[in-house]
Amino acid sequence: MVKSMLFQKDKGNLIIISGPSGVGKGTVCRALLEKYDDVALSISATTRKARIGEKEGREYFFYTREKFLQLIEKKAFLEWAEVFDNYYGTPLPYVQKILQQGQDCLLEIDVQGALQVKAKWPTGVFVFLVPPSREELVRRITCRGTETITEMQKRLKQAEDEMAHLQEYDYVVVNDFVQQAVEKLRAIIVGERCRVSRLNL
Amino acid sequence: MVKSMLFQKDKGNLIIISGPSGVGKGTVCRALLEKYDDVALSISATTRKARIGEKEGREYFFYTREKFLQLIEKKAFLEWAEVFDNYYGTPLPYVQKILQQGQDCLLEIDVQGALQVKAKWPTGVFVFLVPPSREELVRRITCRGTETITEMQKRLKQAEDEMAHLQEYDYVVVNDFVQQAVEKLRAIIVGERCRVSRLNL
Repeated sequence: MVKSMLFQKDKGNLIIISGPSGVGKGTVCRALLEKYDDVALSISATTRKARIGEKEGREYFFYTREKFLQLIEKKAFLEWAEVFDNYYGTPLPYVQKILQQGQDCLLEIDVQGALQVKAKWPTGVFVFLVPPSREELVRRITCRGTETITEMQKRLKQAEDEMAHLQEYDYVVVNDFVQQAVEKLRAIIVGERCRVSRLNL
Repeated sequence: MVKSMLFQKDKGNLIIISGPSGVGKGTVCRALLEKYDDVALSISATTRKARIGEKEGREYFFYTREKFLQLIEKKAFLEWAEVFDNYYGTPLPYVQKILQQGQDCLLEIDVQGALQVKAKWPTGVFVFLVPPSREELVRRITCRGTETITEMQKRLKQAEDEMAHLQEYDYVVVNDFVQQAVEKLRAIIVGERCRVSRLNL
């Protein structure tokens, strides 16, 4: 019985925060990370040039195109995508390092990326963030004010398509008020640490 | 899309708190119910006589033996057991009433009862409360001081047997410090409300 009472988990969980374009994934993740320090954010790699103020290993890992392609070849990304002329991806070793330290690793990612992650890491905790209503999503997308009407319509159409993937996720959190969404996300993270199926028995 | 964004759940979840004899289920449940009012406790029925200070529908529903047996016949119990010469059980209609009001229903129950509930209500949230160590369990059992050594040994053996059912549960919570156990239980309850599989899509 002594053995079966040792419930220390030696590895963290991979927590995927995803959801339609414009829902506010970044805001919720930043608020969570500010409040709780036992969760670490996964850092993406990219081939685009660092902008002024960006620091290697903080905003991104900046890789050459050659290195990035080699790492794709070695299957060293949890997911990756080519956007315009640049590559973006989640380096697997960085995620593994966080998890092996016993910390949960938070991955903020779009729906297409999340589906790639799910195929490779099905034991991840997949959380879908949704807007409280379609009207609110329209408002959030249009309020950015940096896009043309055609671009906004495209983004809204994309968000609608992304919503259709909800059922492939484990949890759904309505991002109505940021702090409420953060507390629900926190509850999901704490609850998952208590899952019997995640113990080393 | 509008429809798929309506995530109001119209029914609560059944939360089963169980665990080996002596682990402190009652203490944790009482502390949870005192702090959070969106969870209601299931009340058991019994054929034993009400003791002084006990009130119908508060500590128990007091049924005659005849009524209890009729209700067993009608499958109106979520689980029931005969202990010495009395019957104890969980009336299904009471649980259903709580859930239909949209409240979660907390069921504090021993391991044998929990296994009966799981057979009838597999979508329940099954939480196993465990002591931090075997030594602590021995201490909690012996500290009651009301039992003979043989009785205590029997209770300890029973607790060990009950621990073997851990893997049939969804979650495990170590009852080291009551408030920590309560917060983990709370996180499990809040997280389960966000489960995609529990939505009416």
